[in-house]
Amino acid sequence: MAEQEQRRPGYRAGLGGELLAEFLGTFVLILLGCASVAVAVAGLPGSGRQADSFGAANWLIVAFGWGFAVVFGVYVAGGVSGAHINPAVTLAFAVRRAFPWVKVVPYMLAQLVGAFVAAALVYSVYSWAIDAFNAKAGVARDQSLDTFAIFATFPAEYFAGSWWGPLLDQIVGTAVLVLLIFALIDNRNSAPAANLGPFMIGMVVTVIGLTFGTNAGYAINPARDFGPRLWTFFTGWGDIALPGTYEHFSFYFWIPIVGPLIGAVVGAFVYDLFIGQVLAARPGGPEPGRAGDE
Amino acid sequence: MAEQEQRRPGYRAGLGGELLAEFLGTFVLILLGCASVAVAVAGLPGSGRQADSFGAANWLIVAFGWGFAVVFGVYVAGGVSGAHINPAVTLAFAVRRAFPWVKVVPYMLAQLVGAFVAAALVYSVYSWAIDAFNAKAGVARDQSLDTFAIFATFPAEYFAGSWWGPLLDQIVGTAVLVLLIFALIDNRNSAPAANLGPFMIGMVVTVIGLTFGTNAGYAINPARDFGPRLWTFFTGWGDIALPGTYEHFSFYFWIPIVGPLIGAVVGAFVYDLFIGQVLAARPGGPEPGRAGDE
Amino acid sequence: MAEQEQRRPGYRAGLGGELLAEFLGTFVLILLGCASVAVAVAGLPGSGRQADSFGAANWLIVAFGWGFAVVFGVYVAGGVSGAHINPAVTLAFAVRRAFPWVKVVPYMLAQLVGAFVAAALVYSVYSWAIDAFNAKAGVARDQSLDTFAIFATFPAEYFAGSWWGPLLDQIVGTAVLVLLIFALIDNRNSAPAANLGPFMIGMVVTVIGLTFGTNAGYAINPARDFGPRLWTFFTGWGDIALPGTYEHFSFYFWIPIVGPLIGAVVGAFVYDLFIGQVLAARPGGPEPGRAGDE
Amino acid sequence: MAEQEQRRPGYRAGLGGELLAEFLGTFVLILLGCASVAVAVAGLPGSGRQADSFGAANWLIVAFGWGFAVVFGVYVAGGVSGAHINPAVTLAFAVRRAFPWVKVVPYMLAQLVGAFVAAALVYSVYSWAIDAFNAKAGVARDQSLDTFAIFATFPAEYFAGSWWGPLLDQIVGTAVLVLLIFALIDNRNSAPAANLGPFMIGMVVTVIGLTFGTNAGYAINPARDFGPRLWTFFTGWGDIALPGTYEHFSFYFWIPIVGPLIGAVVGAFVYDLFIGQVLAARPGGPEPGRAGDE
Repeated sequence: MAEQEQRRPGYRAGLGGELLAEFLGTFVLILLGCASVAVAVAGLPGSGRQADSFGAANWLIVAFGWGFAVVFGVYVAGGVSGAHINPAVTLAFAVRRAFPWVKVVPYMLAQLVGAFVAAALVYSVYSWAIDAFNAKAGVARDQSLDTFAIFATFPAEYFAGSWWGPLLDQIVGTAVLVLLIFALIDNRNSAPAANLGPFMIGMVVTVIGLTFGTNAGYAINPARDFGPRLWTFFTGWGDIALPGTYEHFSFYFWIPIVGPLIGAVVGAFVYDLFIGQVLAARPGGPEPGRAGDE
Repeated sequence: MAEQEQRRPGYRAGLGGELLAEFLGTFVLILLGCASVAVAVAGLPGSGRQADSFGAANWLIVAFGWGFAVVFGVYVAGGVSGAHINPAVTLAFAVRRAFPWVKVVPYMLAQLVGAFVAAALVYSVYSWAIDAFNAKAGVARDQSLDTFAIFATFPAEYFAGSWWGPLLDQIVGTAVLVLLIFALIDNRNSAPAANLGPFMIGMVVTVIGLTFGTNAGYAINPARDFGPRLWTFFTGWGDIALPGTYEHFSFYFWIPIVGPLIGAVVGAFVYDLFIGQVLAARPGGPEPGRAGDE
Repeated sequence: MAEQEQRRPGYRAGLGGELLAEFLGTFVLILLGCASVAVAVAGLPGSGRQADSFGAANWLIVAFGWGFAVVFGVYVAGGVSGAHINPAVTLAFAVRRAFPWVKVVPYMLAQLVGAFVAAALVYSVYSWAIDAFNAKAGVARDQSLDTFAIFATFPAEYFAGSWWGPLLDQIVGTAVLVLLIFALIDNRNSAPAANLGPFMIGMVVTVIGLTFGTNAGYAINPARDFGPRLWTFFTGWGDIALPGTYEHFSFYFWIPIVGPLIGAVVGAFVYDLFIGQVLAARPGGPEPGRAGDE
Repeated sequence: MAEQEQRRPGYRAGLGGELLAEFLGTFVLILLGCASVAVAVAGLPGSGRQADSFGAANWLIVAFGWGFAVVFGVYVAGGVSGAHINPAVTLAFAVRRAFPWVKVVPYMLAQLVGAFVAAALVYSVYSWAIDAFNAKAGVARDQSLDTFAIFATFPAEYFAGSWWGPLLDQIVGTAVLVLLIFALIDNRNSAPAANLGPFMIGMVVTVIGLTFGTNAGYAINPARDFGPRLWTFFTGWGDIALPGTYEHFSFYFWIPIVGPLIGAVVGAFVYDLFIGQVLAARPGGPEPGRAGDE
């Protein structure tokens, strides 16, 4: 296919281009991800009519919505920046995969801005649905956890003020994410070929949604939570957004930031301890002919 | 496998063959897509018995139905015409990928005719189910939005007459579609190999259904909406079909035509601005060894 | 992996081996497919308690159950016999792809026997669930359409005696199946590589379930319906099984045999008319660089 | 990607490394698998409020949760140990694929320990949800089959004390698993390439969940059941855990151990009898150009 671009501004060939890619990749991730919750919560016919109308099938919409959001965010940015689209992943690559520390903060900022702008667009497209949902439910916007859930995360009621519960949940969820990303891109292991890594990485997020999604909304990505949370703070969700005040919990916002950063480093170390060092200890990598090899 | 064709009419080797492929690809798309709504609305046991029987699991049937409809529409036509099967995609390829402008209108017409004929076949197979559904619900066909939804789209009630809401929704949905198609077929980026592009492009439509599907039925394709809409106009849905009159909305039919055409061009420009120009600015394309590369 | 077989009986190298493969492939297809309906109808907690407990989510179990049943049936037999596992597909290959006519009847018989034996094993594993379901519902086995549905197909109530409705449904469903199989294995077109054809062919059956599944149970395969139907005839479902007598319909059993055989030939001709002849008319097959190419 | 490991302890290059991989692979399998049941049973909003709140959509969460748990467990360990992550699979490889018998017990122990540790982590993350569920349902932990189901398996009520029913179910389910694994890794057959074997093997477990999952919880893996069962025995589920006492059944725990071991050997023999020996009898493997070949 003929490429029509003639202008080739120099900054695009270096870090500038990578930051554009991280911005757009994270933008796609949050645009699709948050919009999937908008559909599941406020978009479907009958939304808001019944107290218990959000069930297991709605959760499947959210889990596959976020999963494919990752798939396509990674396909968009993969060839330029490697598609971290998650500050916790960027940190893990810096700690265990020689990603340059000097790029860490720029990457994280590009991700955060991408997430914020995407939240703004989700809001623009779903403001009618949000207002209709709140009107039907009879709650003011700054009391509406249901519509806040479209954008950012909060802990399940049963944690009842325990910060350790949701923090542990975020650490474990993100450790699984990074452990599996490290496996899926390790060519010494049985990494998928044919450029299907992005698909599998997205399915990792789908399965985390199906397995560690309900305790605290599986942020597992500081930009994914804080970008949209900031947007909701500016558009009327008040204390629910920042500092994150819920019935049994105050000052929550730091947990989906700190938990993922810790978890990502844990996951990276666990992969290298159990698998990475084993593969490195072998003369020529794994022997051919094993199950899972091409 | 032995190929038995001996007749090789000359017109098939050129534009004629491409139009046959666009016709059949769009036919497959609409046949499967509309039929998935027929199953979800009127086919399942218990359909029409309860007011709220259409829920999140029905939506999953529709989202995966339309997604796989695209997958297989693209596999059918891909090797001949590139499988646009969508006038908005054809426009985007003309604007940003050097697709010949002279082919644009013929492609669009082939797509529209394919969509219209597919709607006729869906109607033939589901007319019993449609009539039974309307009889159970006690509404005349020209009052039945539920069965009209099998064929074409309409805006959610909460837009209450605003044409900007559904138009924005169609622009955003189609921009996402084209942005991701451009990423998935860009071999300088991390495009899927092994001829899995058609699968991933179909999953783009699944995720758009899960994320931007409920505001206005995610036409994101002028032929997908207008072809079947024309069919319903001729078979008794009246003003609901054309010009598209709903409780809070009149003269709707142009929105799923104009919105996708605008959105497709927006998506194409966004991809090239953030990613295409970055990849073009690099000497030899992306460096090997990044996440997502083969 | 070391292969331990030393005995190499001669008949296995020819048609005998192909028939073993068709038997086992169809056995896997029916074992998994029928068992998915057993889970959806009688296996899930709460089955049979409520009149309307079978809904859209149950249908997803059935659609993905049958789809993956095809995926794995084809992976099992693909390398030996090409994995038709469906008499209608065998017929289409004979009519349009030079499959030897002399093998047609042996293939069909192997498929039928595989389907029958698989139904027997499904029955063995689910007889407790079936009896418990019927006891809860308070109906005798030979009155239980719900448990018959585990094994074979019947028309929706709304056809009310019309044989043309379900016959048309079977013709269209099978035509789609064969049209898409022909596209997915045509290397001149954009067929999936990396041996992923079997996966895509299974997803064709999933999407047919989501789109043409509820009118008449999407047999789209004479062996799939008649093998298990024969088993239910021998184990107490009486007239429901053979000749297929339902509230508004008598003598139904021939429709899921004749419909698929007609539809398969139609689908094969449509593919070749619109796509096959176009690809044959081109000098060197499709040009490289189109969307969907590797 | 630069590999930073310098320490290369010798034991990791041999069996020690394989056991680390089997441990971590099984850990990932059980962590994700059991957590998917935790989400479906106790995590979703509204869990435990209604008697029948666990339906078909919850089952889809469990089936895709366990399926992707296998996908990623295999991707993690595949390049090191071949990723058996299941004692029954290890046995089948020893019996029919020349896997060294001396490694069988070490592999099984590594799998069991991985499963036990994963159950402990699932418990740590979900203890709040479990206690809240039981409080809402008003049952003590050692009476709560629902929360026990997060960790291990038990037979459906309708077996009413019959040990043959669930044993047959486990034999059939595991035979299907091993038969399909043998097909999917047999390069003489149509095995998926591009390192997608792990994905397809996980989808085998998804479809077994959709087809043979409800009779007895589809352990189909002695470590998957006994590891978490042991954990629940130590943390308060009492007789439900060990020896496995249910309303109509006592001393159940051996069935998900013995059944899978028998079934795995049966599946291996069936594959080789119907397919393996056929492929071995052919001069140069299957002819090229068949459906399903690359």
